[in-house]
Amino acid sequence: MRIDGMDAIFSPRSVAVIGASGDPRRIGGRPVDFLRRHGFAGPILPINPKSAEVQGLPAYPSISEAPLVPDLAVIALPAPLAVKAIEDCAARGVRGAVIFSSGFSEVDAEGAALQARMVDIAREAGMRLVGPNCLGIANVRHNLYATFTPGVQDHLPRPGGVSIVSQSGAFGSYCMTLVRMRGLGVNLWATTGNSCDVDFADAVAYCAQDDATRVIMGYLEGATDRDRLVEALELARARSKPVVMMKVGRSAVGAEAAQSHTASLAGADAIYDAAFRQYGVYRAQSVDEMFDVTYACSESGSLMQGDRLGLVTVSGGVGVLMADEAEKVGLDVPALPEAAQKKLKEVLPFAGVRNPVDVTAQLVNQIDLLETNMDVLFGDGDIDAAIIFMSTVGLSADLNEGIRTGLERARAKYPGRPMLFCSLTEPEGRAAYERSGFIVFEEPTRAVRAMAALRYFARSFARAGAADPVPDLPALSPLPGGMVNEIEAKALLAEAGIAIVRETLARTPDEAAAAAETMGYPVVLKIASPDILHKSDIGGVALNLRSAEEVRAAGARILDLAAEKAPGARIDGLVVAEQAAPGLEAILGVTQDPAFGPVVMFGLGGVLVEALGDVSFRVAPFGPAEARRMIDEIRGRKLLDAFRGTPERDIEALAESLARLSAFAAHHGAALESIDVNPLIVGARGQGAVAADAVIIPSGAADR
Amino acid sequence: MRIDGMDAIFSPRSVAVIGASGDPRRIGGRPVDFLRRHGFAGPILPINPKSAEVQGLPAYPSISEAPLVPDLAVIALPAPLAVKAIEDCAARGVRGAVIFSSGFSEVDAEGAALQARMVDIAREAGMRLVGPNCLGIANVRHNLYATFTPGVQDHLPRPGGVSIVSQSGAFGSYCMTLVRMRGLGVNLWATTGNSCDVDFADAVAYCAQDDATRVIMGYLEGATDRDRLVEALELARARSKPVVMMKVGRSAVGAEAAQSHTASLAGADAIYDAAFRQYGVYRAQSVDEMFDVTYACSESGSLMQGDRLGLVTVSGGVGVLMADEAEKVGLDVPALPEAAQKKLKEVLPFAGVRNPVDVTAQLVNQIDLLETNMDVLFGDGDIDAAIIFMSTVGLSADLNEGIRTGLERARAKYPGRPMLFCSLTEPEGRAAYERSGFIVFEEPTRAVRAMAALRYFARSFARAGAADPVPDLPALSPLPGGMVNEIEAKALLAEAGIAIVRETLARTPDEAAAAAETMGYPVVLKIASPDILHKSDIGGVALNLRSAEEVRAAGARILDLAAEKAPGARIDGLVVAEQAAPGLEAILGVTQDPAFGPVVMFGLGGVLVEALGDVSFRVAPFGPAEARRMIDEIRGRKLLDAFRGTPERDIEALAESLARLSAFAAHHGAALESIDVNPLIVGARGQGAVAADAVIIPSGAADR
Repeated sequence: MRIDGMDAIFSPRSVAVIGASGDPRRIGGRPVDFLRRHGFAGPILPINPKSAEVQGLPAYPSISEAPLVPDLAVIALPAPLAVKAIEDCAARGVRGAVIFSSGFSEVDAEGAALQARMVDIAREAGMRLVGPNCLGIANVRHNLYATFTPGVQDHLPRPGGVSIVSQSGAFGSYCMTLVRMRGLGVNLWATTGNSCDVDFADAVAYCAQDDATRVIMGYLEGATDRDRLVEALELARARSKPVVMMKVGRSAVGAEAAQSHTASLAGADAIYDAAFRQYGVYRAQSVDEMFDVTYACSESGSLMQGDRLGLVTVSGGVGVLMADEAEKVGLDVPALPEAAQKKLKEVLPFAGVRNPVDVTAQLVNQIDLLETNMDVLFGDGDIDAAIIFMSTVGLSADLNEGIRTGLERARAKYPGRPMLFCSLTEPEGRAAYERSGFIVFEEPTRAVRAMAALRYFARSFARAGAADPVPDLPALSPLPGGMVNEIEAKALLAEAGIAIVRETLARTPDEAAAAAETMGYPVVLKIASPDILHKSDIGGVALNLRSAEEVRAAGARILDLAAEKAPGARIDGLVVAEQAAPGLEAILGVTQDPAFGPVVMFGLGGVLVEALGDVSFRVAPFGPAEARRMIDEIRGRKLLDAFRGTPERDIEALAESLARLSAFAAHHGAALESIDVNPLIVGARGQGAVAADAVIIPSGAADR
Repeated sequence: MRIDGMDAIFSPRSVAVIGASGDPRRIGGRPVDFLRRHGFAGPILPINPKSAEVQGLPAYPSISEAPLVPDLAVIALPAPLAVKAIEDCAARGVRGAVIFSSGFSEVDAEGAALQARMVDIAREAGMRLVGPNCLGIANVRHNLYATFTPGVQDHLPRPGGVSIVSQSGAFGSYCMTLVRMRGLGVNLWATTGNSCDVDFADAVAYCAQDDATRVIMGYLEGATDRDRLVEALELARARSKPVVMMKVGRSAVGAEAAQSHTASLAGADAIYDAAFRQYGVYRAQSVDEMFDVTYACSESGSLMQGDRLGLVTVSGGVGVLMADEAEKVGLDVPALPEAAQKKLKEVLPFAGVRNPVDVTAQLVNQIDLLETNMDVLFGDGDIDAAIIFMSTVGLSADLNEGIRTGLERARAKYPGRPMLFCSLTEPEGRAAYERSGFIVFEEPTRAVRAMAALRYFARSFARAGAADPVPDLPALSPLPGGMVNEIEAKALLAEAGIAIVRETLARTPDEAAAAAETMGYPVVLKIASPDILHKSDIGGVALNLRSAEEVRAAGARILDLAAEKAPGARIDGLVVAEQAAPGLEAILGVTQDPAFGPVVMFGLGGVLVEALGDVSFRVAPFGPAEARRMIDEIRGRKLLDAFRGTPERDIEALAESLARLSAFAAHHGAALESIDVNPLIVGARGQGAVAADAVIIPSGAADR
């Protein structure tokens, strides 16, 4: 397990600082200063060959001369000396090290070699390493600040459930200040720097298995090891720990800037998006959103277990604004049942009672009615969560008391349904709500988005428990070494259980006509050549042929055109295929993503893919339920339903084809460069989906 | 001019409070309390028949017994008494009144009648009215608080350039507290309530002509008078006053909730969106955004005059995040020229110099390099605006001093290019930047959006000056009273200068064949009936007919099918039309919006409109430049460019057709129910665009 030994780093009993400085403003001085002043309970061992005392603590010339073996060593030395220090630590039996030093793989090949040597030493000795070129780590409950971030110089975050993992020191440092300013409680904090040993995935996994973590906040620049990342995210999900991720580089300029900023090959942004959805990670689009969602997940006693959102408001306009936002983020704001509306009208005659429930100033004047109001919403209205918007009312200490009491009573009766209080507040008023276990937001649309995040994680955690097995494939033939022709390609897919049109290879137009007679009409005729990928472009396809003569004539024409327009191409003959029943044309694809390996793409044929790029992705492999979510993500999804006289499509067969394609892609892994199933003809419900054409390109085949 | 006389309301020299109460917590007590305590300079005249003194001021039994004629009367009385008070005011020569009272048109027909009487009295006397059923108005510079909002009970906003107009009292009150808490400076504040006289548009126009207004914040539930609203928005634009609008009801639930919340018929939300874009209003999607944009517009010394945004950052990751957001909101983050990058590298060897410029901690340690850095960005880089993201650096008083000096020097050299400082700050540090004239944001994506708003208004104000005349139409025939057949419809559009396919009406298949012989082949044949709108559905269309026999046969078939499938329909015969050259099919439409009157719709034919609803709107009439912006808004815009072997389309002809259709629609106004030009066939560039089919429905024609 990759998190073995990481306790030495995050929960050490003792810490040495190698390169410790007497000046608390210097990099080697800060960790000593922070550990001392912030109250780390165990021994702190400054290591400095030139000084017997550092910041009032006895210091030692080397780790070998220290009076005890520390669990953790913090290394604040230039790169070559850092390697020596790791060697000494290994010899002494130190179990973990955090290395601030730069000058390693981020600089040049020499630095990379130095880093590799350091890793070899550590692996040999069973020592875990964080960094180098990082800002360090922290464990807030243990007052462990093995870092030089100025973010903990004068103020500390309070202990709590948020664990933070950042590939960037600058962003990690920014987060450390923000969690404090926003009042979030922090558990673990890690910046991974060059990630020579402990990488982003390891740190996330470690946080996920730590019971004190309630939510994980991640800043990711690029994934380096897909399997480890997926494993970490799945662990977090299995342990019901929400992961809120910031991953920048969505735009073209952003992606270019990101590439120049990090060494890691980032992979396509759309793939990150898909992967995050697939593994239940919430991707934040802004710093506000990252902290809002983290706050909600960390402080809410419960997630939102259904889609029904109740909105209570003292401003009709803001009620509508929240309803607008709810629709945007996929929450329902259902009209209350007639009986519930009637009950509310009895209590609050001036109220708008549909949902949003506009309680008007009347409720403010009779605040004890709030309990009844919430009763009707949760009871008769059967809503899953509520947002209570009180405009400026939260500024009044008197009213807050009454509101809080009402909400507490409602919660006692309807536990497990999150309630979010939204109002302008003073810090003290706000704190009182939070102490009572309510989430507080000032801005109504942000409140709705935070609630949607609680719904997102509830859905994701439910999925983690639901069975959605990747289709079991029979033994598959190996991929050929060179180019694969169309018939071979479809035969390979057929092995994976993907339906293909019946077809046969004919060498001559006469053979083609004979094959068509056996197959029955109408048929399609296509040039068969591993060198011609876009058959239509050279006139290499004839549709809807209805007799032997037509097949013979079309076959001769196709062969002539191929000879004329693709003179160097190897010609295997003609593919005779049954003409698939008309259906909606879908496009299925597989590509290799630098970060996530084989990924599957789905889109509907024609203008949606070509002009709008309306496609969705998933990391292979996945099951049919995941495939359905993938299908549901495209904007043109409606076309698969009964639509303007066309029947509902066989979505089940489509999903099964996608899942099987994903299993096929995962099976072949890096041996596969790409697959293009275009079109997959999706029939009416119950009629199946059949691949009418396919291109499979094995890795490196094009170069051979 | 509708704003005549409104000075009496917003800049009165004296104020009477009719229904004044001695209790400063009551509705009739609050305005007296606020005017006194907050320092209104002129006479305050409490009117109360039961008391000679109110809150320490001499009171009078009626307005007629007051010692002077106040400019403004505030009415805090039950509805029937309020009408009497208005009568008294009119008799005494009072010029303006603000009426808090409810019980008017918002309640029932009787209330509406009462309200109408009040308006008659006021109009007769030349008195202006705000309300009834409103929360009042304020003029912050004049310490005029003719309101009972608790938002000004204990704290006041500072005087400044933001004017606020709200149709909702609750939202207006919320805004009043928010502007104060967010430190915005306020000029005028108005809640319009039932808008019996001064409505939302009047209040916006009044704010726009007031020199002290720098930006107008509006909360709109529904427009009542399109012409007045458009006039007010155009006045604001002509006077370069940004209008930032909150208009809720975007979602289906939201729209329904909005409808139940307000009496006004809201109109389709997409039309508001389009109208706001058309008249340069910024529509905020959240309360945060509303205040962010207002803040930026109010405090920035300049708008952003070009698209080039420079990003300076101490966190590479946040630099990329801002670049991502910039792309989302349509700003460029151009790579700096090579020479500029080289210069920067010389000064800051560790920096990322492309743009975003990642200045790293190095700049923080040598803050005087900031000026050079900005010099390179503005000079060599020729950027139009800059965002300087400093993470937590803004928390340090020492560093702020240096940063501010650097930015001030840069501004002196490159005036008119907005600079926005983005960092965590303490209130004092922030205030120092603001005093120096810089906008400060904490959150990087919000900073980018605010900058984009400065660009939005610069573009909008530039458009206001640019000529884009609505096409001049010749004298048009009046619309027929009843249903219009296809040939008539196209003839009407042809009068407006919209190209139509050549066509002729034939009564029999033989006549059709003769007409086709004259016209030349291929032709299209269609059933001609004012009662059959969807001709294809009954088999009433035959395409690509190439001989007299084909025309005759198709004509007979069409007439048979019409008789069979639409037995009651009046049949005029057969339309024989030339078959238009192939092109891209567009759909143009006109509908009547309850709020904005005739609006024009544009979309591209087929799946984009049908499955994705990919259409854009504009309020009629407009010129071809506006039409081009309308065309650019659809997601499938790319299809009009050269695309996968198809040529670039005649966008100029398409825009001209849209503008002409808008002029046609505006000319006929309410006499028109709808128009459907489907398809308009858009040829290759230079080949024009031609209407192949059109339906025109005059108002009420379907009922006749």
